[in-house]
This record gives sequence, C-alpha cells and structure tokens, in this order.
Amino acid sequence: MSITFVGLGLGPKKHITEAALDSIRRADVVFLDTYTGMLPKETVDFLRKISRRLVLADRYTLEEGAEALLRDAVEKEVVVAVQGDPFVATTHISLALEACKRGIACKTVNGISSYSAAASLSGLQAYKFGRAVTLPSEDSVESVRSVYENILENMSRGLHTLVFLDTKGNGLRIPVALSRLRELEGSLKKGVVSDDRLVVALARLGYEDCVVKAGRVVELLAWDFPDPPHMLIFPGKLHFLEREALVRLLGVPREYVEAYEPINYGVDRVRRYIDACEGALSRSRGSSREAKVTEVLRVAESYLEDSKFFLKSGDIFNSLSAISYCEGLLDALRMLGYVEFDWKK
Amino acid sequence: MSITFVGLGLGPKKHITEAALDSIRRADVVFLDTYTGMLPKETVDFLRKISRRLVLADRYTLEEGAEALLRDAVEKEVVVAVQGDPFVATTHISLALEACKRGIACKTVNGISSYSAAASLSGLQAYKFGRAVTLPSEDSVESVRSVYENILENMSRGLHTLVFLDTKGNGLRIPVALSRLRELEGSLKKGVVSDDRLVVALARLGYEDCVVKAGRVVELLAWDFPDPPHMLIFPGKLHFLEREALVRLLGVPREYVEAYEPINYGVDRVRRYIDACEGALSRSRGSSREAKVTEVLRVAESYLEDSKFFLKSGDIFNSLSAISYCEGLLDALRMLGYVEFDWKK
Repeated sequence: MSITFVGLGLGPKKHITEAALDSIRRADVVFLDTYTGMLPKETVDFLRKISRRLVLADRYTLEEGAEALLRDAVEKEVVVAVQGDPFVATTHISLALEACKRGIACKTVNGISSYSAAASLSGLQAYKFGRAVTLPSEDSVESVRSVYENILENMSRGLHTLVFLDTKGNGLRIPVALSRLRELEGSLKKGVVSDDRLVVALARLGYEDCVVKAGRVVELLAWDFPDPPHMLIFPGKLHFLEREALVRLLGVPREYVEAYEPINYGVDRVRRYIDACEGALSRSRGSSREAKVTEVLRVAESYLEDSKFFLKSGDIFNSLSAISYCEGLLDALRMLGYVEFDWKK
Repeated sequence: MSITFVGLGLGPKKHITEAALDSIRRADVVFLDTYTGMLPKETVDFLRKISRRLVLADRYTLEEGAEALLRDAVEKEVVVAVQGDPFVATTHISLALEACKRGIACKTVNGISSYSAAASLSGLQAYKFGRAVTLPSEDSVESVRSVYENILENMSRGLHTLVFLDTKGNGLRIPVALSRLRELEGSLKKGVVSDDRLVVALARLGYEDCVVKAGRVVELLAWDFPDPPHMLIFPGKLHFLEREALVRLLGVPREYVEAYEPINYGVDRVRRYIDACEGALSRSRGSSREAKVTEVLRVAESYLEDSKFFLKSGDIFNSLSAISYCEGLLDALRMLGYVEFDWKK
C-alpha cells in the first residue's frame, strides 16, 4: 500500500494540521518517531487515542529494524509521524528510499518546522540566514569546532546562523551549548562566542512556556530557561528593522544592539594585509632610482588601490588576491635588496 | 487589546493548525493578508465563515494605511492572518513593531512555511541550504543578477539555494524565471544556469496538484507546470543520499545525477592561478645563478606548494592568498629582468 510521512509540527497537539490528523486517523498503523524529536506526553496520548494502532518507533525501528515497518507497508496504510517536518532528518529519507525501491508508494504531509519557526520568532529575516547546524549531545571537540566555524563563515558573510541543539536524552540546554562554544573560543580566539556576543536563545517553541530571549553570552549562561527543546541563533549583520525587532520585541537594551558588530574574518584579515602593504610601500618609495624598480613599486601601488576598492565594494575575493600579489611584489624587491622595510606585525 | 499574527500554512485549508483556527474564531476582526501570499478562494471562503469579521487586507491596509488596523487593535482582538508563516515578510515585522510602540500586545501563531516545506519535499538536506532569495516579478537586470550571484556563492560553498518566485499578480512562473536567469548566464558565463544545470522545480506546494520535478534547465523550460506559486532549488554539492533521492523520489535519470557538478567559482579561479604560477616557475628555474634570485624562486616555490595544500584541504582563502603572493614574487622577478616568461592565459 503506502507510507505517509506526516509532520506533527512544534510539539503540542494544537500545532498539528487537519491534513496530518486525517492521515493519522485513516492509517492502519502509525509509527510515531521518538528518536529525532521530543514529543510531550499529551500529544502522544492524543495520537494513541485517534489512531487505530500506534507504535512508538525508536531509532532501531526506523533504521536497522525498518524491515518490520516496510513489511507492514506492503499491505497496509502506514504513517510515520514525525515532530516538525519530515525529511529534515536523514533517517526518514533513508526509509523513503528503501520503500521506493520496493515499489511502496510514499507520500508527505508537511508540518511546521522549527527551522522556519525559529527564524520567524527571532524577528530576524529568514532571507538572511546562512547554513544551519546542529550541536550534538556528545561532547566532542570536533563537533563544537564545526559549529563554531559554520557560525564564523555565515557571520563573515553577514548571515545569521540557526543552531539546533540535539534533542537526544533530555535535550541539550542553552547554557551547556554556550559554555562548550565559549571554551573553544578560548583557544580559537576569533571573537565569535565572546562574552559580549549578542545571541538569540529559543526554548520550547510552540509551547505555552516558550521563551525567546536575546542577550549577551554571559547573560544567557546565567539565564533560567524552561526544559528543552532549545535552539540558538547567532546574528550576522543587522538590518535596521532587525535591530528594532531585537530592541522592541525581544527587549534587548538598545546600547547592546547599537554596539553589535558581527565578526568578519575575511575582511579583518584583508584589512591587516592592506595596512602592512601600505606601511611597506611608504618606506620603499623613492629608495631606488632604477626605472625597473620604480615600475615595480608603481604596479604595487596600483594593486594596493585595487584591493582597497574591491574591499569597499564587498568583493573580498578580489581584494585578497590583489593585496597578496602586491605583498609578493614588495617582498621580492626586499629580498633582492632594492628596498628595506620590516613587515608590520 | 492585541494583535495575533497567524500563519495559515501552505494554502489549502487542511494545512491550517488548530491553534491558528482557534485564534481566528476568537478574534473580533481578522485582517487577511492578500499581499504577500496567494490564497485559494476556498480557503478565503472558509475563513470568512468561521470569523466574526474578515477584512481582505492589501498592501496599503498593512503598510501606509495600517492606522485603521492599529486603532482596531487598541480595543479589540485583532488577527492578521498570513499565508505560510508570519514574519518571513518584513511587512508584518514593521506592523508588529508599530503595535509594540503603542503598547499593543503582539502574539504569533506559527504556520507551515514553504521555506522549510520546499527543502523537505526536494529530498535535499535542510542543513545544506545556504541563503534563500526571491526573484521579483518586475523584470530588472539588477534583481536577476543578485539572484544569480546568490546561487553562485552558495554553490561555490557546496550549498543548495532556495529561490522563491514572486507571488505578486498571477505569480512568476518557473520557465519565465529560468529564461531570465539563462539570459544573464549568456553575459556572465559562469555556468550557473547553463542548459544542462540540474534544478529542482516546485509548483503548488501543499495542493493536490503539487508538482516537484527535477531536471535540466532545458527540460524545465519546456515543462507544463500547474499555476503558481512556483519555486526553484539550485543544488550545491550532493550527498549520496541526496543523489539517491533525486533519482528514486524525483525520477531524475541516474546519469544526470552522476554527471552533476556544482560550480565552484573560487576553486576554479585558484586552480587557474596555480597552473599559471606552475608554468611560470618551471620556465624561471635555473635562469639565474644569483643567490638572491634563487632564494626568491625558492620562496615562490614553497608558496605554490602551500597554495596547493590549502586548496586540497578546502581552505580557499589561504590558498588564494598564497598563490597571489607567489604570483607577485614571480612577476617582480620578471619585471626586473631576472627571469623571462609569459603568463599563461
């Protein structure tokens, strides 16, 4: 027959759509995913009441042990019910692929995803979010580093980053996530998760006790949030409407928002290179009368100007290329003894 | 009293949540946004039936003319009902900010957004989407260029791009959007929207006649899609599960998916620079016995190797910096007459 992947939305049953309820009521068996989300008992009880047969499906049932589910789906109408929207987690895609291979029809009924709801509730614009990322429950330096780098990369492009906090076990909490990231900040020192960094913290989206709180890292570390699910957003460059939203809707003191500066790692580095080349050039000018040397200095000067121009127009790639080339020209002159300077550190 | 911003989901009424229906039933006045979305007549009729008073709200009512709505909200329970999820469009944030300034309470009831549903239905992983972008109805070269550049930037980082097609008027259609982008391709020539580019096209998400079709640009240009709303996804780097999903769930011929290569503009350029420096170095080696010159060549060589190493490890920024510096060293030697070569074009 078929498998219908049904999104249950944000958790409480009031966020389930009529289309989802219909599919659940009609299904012969409902496999309720207890692995990729955290559903409240009230929702589980409600789904049990309205479905013919409800199976709590853990990771094994949905992955290695999916044979039983797939066998059911050959003859019956099966629903796999999932918190949020299906197919954000790869678990469900693998299952759909396997079903498809066996000629079982697959359908999807969408649900509200925290992926879009978090952006919407933060007051930040959905169009300005870069790649999202998950911080896993397991405390591994590698996973924390990849989250840190993802934030840095988005931030350097002026984009916001949505960080899902793992819902496994009792769910990862905001202060734990922030302190892990801050610990890494201690060694990477790029300023991404400094004490003063402005962050939006979201707890229990869609629940009555939902909290959306924006503030500096030090404040959020000490804040008393309700239970998970928790999420974080690291803002990139702020549009004036986003600044207003943070101040008026989320209550961030205006001076924090005004003082807020995203890290731009690329720009910061190119600026340092430009400064260094400017210093080296000013000490080199006029130090040789040889026409060839003057010509190299003239070319270096024009690449320095190009680099500044590209930087101003936001084209970091060409700016970096021009200033590094300029640095090479100057350094060759220095090594060959035509000019004398030390690179500014 | 209050304004509640209510998300209506994907269009048909079956995607409206119980929480949204509750708010609409309880409200004294419901302002139904007809500006940022396209709601089917059936949904409008249904909402009119269940609400005490329904006002069709165009752009003017929600923006310059919002005074009337805000005055209502001082004494009444007002709902602003919006297709998808509220606050993806800035129109609603401005309204919320103005309400907040006047001390009117603002609440949000989330709905299913095509922002998350499109990712989910494409079989591509939500975590691998970069910044989303909208192609406006108005035919302006600047807006098409910014969409093109957004896709190029995401693609160069291996990320997918969701392109919303404007819903104003009768809504922008997939073939129109693609032909505009392809026209720009003709002048920019970066290969982003070449005839063979694999694209996922989505029409009427959430409706019975929903179409999710993946194929090459030439095929989609000729495809007969149902009416808007329409969307596009330009894939970045494909994970093997994503390849399988495109083949098995969306029916893309396996050979297209296997042959699929995202453009990586940064990598392509750095590779060309590396080739050019390699050529220049091989022609320069041994052309002078002066120790200083040999030393500059040795440094150039080591930066060339660094650049290759950084490129391999995915660090384009350092790779570009190293190869441009190397180029500068070699070019200074050439200009000073120590070595002779032409830059490979």
